[in-house]
Amino acid sequence: MAKDTINVGLVGFGTVGSGLASIMLDPSSELDKKLGFSMKLAKIVDKDITTDRGVKIPDGILTNDLSEVLDDPAIDIVVELVGGTGFAGDLIMRAINAGKHVVSANKALLAHKGGEIFAAASARGVEVGFEASVAGGIPIIKVMKEGLVANRILSVYGIINGTANYILSRMTTECAPFGDVLADAQKLGYAEADPTFDIEGIDAAHKLTILGSLAFGIPLAFDKVYTEGITKITPVDIAFASEFGYRIKLLGIAKSDGSEVELRVHPTMIPEGQMLAKVDGVFNALYVDGDAVGATMYYGRGAGSRPTGSAVLADIVDIARNIRGGAVGRVPAFGRPIDEPLPVKDMQRVKSSYYFRFSVQDRPGVLSKIAGILGNNSISIESVIQKGRKEGGSVPLVILTHEAVEENVTRALAEINALESVDPGAVMIRVEGAEG
Amino acid sequence: MAKDTINVGLVGFGTVGSGLASIMLDPSSELDKKLGFSMKLAKIVDKDITTDRGVKIPDGILTNDLSEVLDDPAIDIVVELVGGTGFAGDLIMRAINAGKHVVSANKALLAHKGGEIFAAASARGVEVGFEASVAGGIPIIKVMKEGLVANRILSVYGIINGTANYILSRMTTECAPFGDVLADAQKLGYAEADPTFDIEGIDAAHKLTILGSLAFGIPLAFDKVYTEGITKITPVDIAFASEFGYRIKLLGIAKSDGSEVELRVHPTMIPEGQMLAKVDGVFNALYVDGDAVGATMYYGRGAGSRPTGSAVLADIVDIARNIRGGAVGRVPAFGRPIDEPLPVKDMQRVKSSYYFRFSVQDRPGVLSKIAGILGNNSISIESVIQKGRKEGGSVPLVILTHEAVEENVTRALAEINALESVDPGAVMIRVEGAEG
Repeated sequence: MAKDTINVGLVGFGTVGSGLASIMLDPSSELDKKLGFSMKLAKIVDKDITTDRGVKIPDGILTNDLSEVLDDPAIDIVVELVGGTGFAGDLIMRAINAGKHVVSANKALLAHKGGEIFAAASARGVEVGFEASVAGGIPIIKVMKEGLVANRILSVYGIINGTANYILSRMTTECAPFGDVLADAQKLGYAEADPTFDIEGIDAAHKLTILGSLAFGIPLAFDKVYTEGITKITPVDIAFASEFGYRIKLLGIAKSDGSEVELRVHPTMIPEGQMLAKVDGVFNALYVDGDAVGATMYYGRGAGSRPTGSAVLADIVDIARNIRGGAVGRVPAFGRPIDEPLPVKDMQRVKSSYYFRFSVQDRPGVLSKIAGILGNNSISIESVIQKGRKEGGSVPLVILTHEAVEENVTRALAEINALESVDPGAVMIRVEGAEG
Repeated sequence: MAKDTINVGLVGFGTVGSGLASIMLDPSSELDKKLGFSMKLAKIVDKDITTDRGVKIPDGILTNDLSEVLDDPAIDIVVELVGGTGFAGDLIMRAINAGKHVVSANKALLAHKGGEIFAAASARGVEVGFEASVAGGIPIIKVMKEGLVANRILSVYGIINGTANYILSRMTTECAPFGDVLADAQKLGYAEADPTFDIEGIDAAHKLTILGSLAFGIPLAFDKVYTEGITKITPVDIAFASEFGYRIKLLGIAKSDGSEVELRVHPTMIPEGQMLAKVDGVFNALYVDGDAVGATMYYGRGAGSRPTGSAVLADIVDIARNIRGGAVGRVPAFGRPIDEPLPVKDMQRVKSSYYFRFSVQDRPGVLSKIAGILGNNSISIESVIQKGRKEGGSVPLVILTHEAVEENVTRALAEINALESVDPGAVMIRVEGAEG
């Protein structure tokens, strides 16, 4: 018999938890009407049950006793919004073992321990929803699992870290150096006190890990994602990119040619006319290219209290509908079995176009030497900008290449960095010209 | 007991039908793997069973006998891709009455007769999927029904007719008049021999009708959609729009303030920095603004054989999963009951900013007279361009206004058109500055 009311227990009453509560407790919500049955935020568990989060919570809901969620058989769905990979992981495993469905926004946890979690959930016959783990409020996971189910996914790529995008956007509009913008972003609350996960691309790699499994059915492979952050991006390179008609964005890129998968996060130059190039500030956007549908794009807020709460609640509703309809497990967690044996391509074998900036002695013959080394390594030049005239000093030499293989680029750069007339430390940024 | 195989009967083997068949019959399809059960394209019905559509069809599937689909109890889902509102409507009602689920891409039919169709389906306990009816391959209907279920939708608007967008895009890049581009579009197959539905905004109004019900829960209200096409747009106005930093697009706009709904299709000037302004050619894009998630955008191919087939197949899979899981009716057809009593606002009461182009006698005092009439009608001017100097002739006077009420604009334009120093037939184009 169908349950009258689906009860939700929330663990973690921080930013996203408050957003979720504000939506679920909104008296003008249309949710019961949409559902045709009742769904209740029955418990909220947090260590801190005194701080005002700006959400009016009915009496008896807020508690610091986790057992009120985990041990109460009336709780159907446990929402984990604690974050981190320690306590959150234990909590989720305990909830699964107690036969409860789970919703989580925890990309780090899923990227690292998803295999174990989804196996346990499958064995116990419960669902784990994770829409909020990638791209905040954009319902990209439902789109990939269900909306584009007819497609073999060829690639999915885009801007999946709002903090990095905010910093790059401000560096671009203000011609400001990375450190200054980061410090200001921290002051404004757009970057955390320890910004490592965001600026080193690790958070994006967590999300790309999940996208890779959704797209290609490969097991979660965080340790195979090539990850490079934005800390070395300078206003000089942003300005040169602009001269070539490009913007620099931190992209997560997952591609498959049917026999191998590419999974990589790195700063990327993209044509300024492309829609991704217009995605500024804390917004996220993802292109998904399917064999039937072609190129599609999804854009919205990648973080924030209520946008992420919107995604969490979509998962809760999906699971609640399955509980009510007796259809738990209706769609597999990743829309398909996660058993494809496609290997992840080594970064050195990836093909890309490239932007190089060398600091060279301003004397005849340097360009010729560099061009020679590039040519010997099968790298052909698309265009060159040589700036300035400083008697005896160093001037920038900027080169855009046609498509080349990364290992050839690595070798060529080592040779060029060793030239006497070139300062060591050449800048290299990958270029993607994908349509849009 | 769960059925072993879900059988699909397709009626209509045209462009979209061939696309659907090409996807379902693709031997490299991952569909069975994703589903975990078998789904079969059991029959294809068309009057013409001899023309080669470029899809290899197994023997025994193609027939011109509709009863092989409607009267065969083994057929679970009937896909209507015939088009039109006559035969297609009868077919769908017969399928529903035979207890079969239905998938259709037929926006005209749903906009006009959806009320009847969904009521019959609900009474008979079958589902009607219509993802492919709006924005082709973009899974916008699933997004609105499920992905954004946590949100009260505030507005949904965008480019939902690829033919009109193709024509406007080419008029913009080529400075070419409407008639020339239309003729060429017809030659190239981007516009139909009778292009009325596309260029007069009727097709967009069909789609907006469906979006309005999805967004606000109001009954399908095609006859209440204000509809204006692109036939009066000229290269002159496109050029002036560009001087103001705008592009002209045919938009479908649905908005609610909680007490009334706006439903309107008309050429619209939007800021060129907005992402919608970058959507060119046959692509579609929709903004959906939700109270929790904020602004989100969805972009992709709005038509075409395989993109639309992708959307049709997503519906088929959804229904097949519900049949298998015993969860038919798991999500209401529009994600909610369609019973909201919100009235549709009369166009004369809608607020917008406006672009006017007057053809005026080049003599002193004309601008003052026009500005006076606008002021008397509570319309304030944002900027003015006055071009050319033709002794005794007419010159263009272009005005951009702040937000005003449409009925005041109607009255002011009537007064201005009656001025002796102004040629009749002032141009008016609405301006939307929504963020993006």
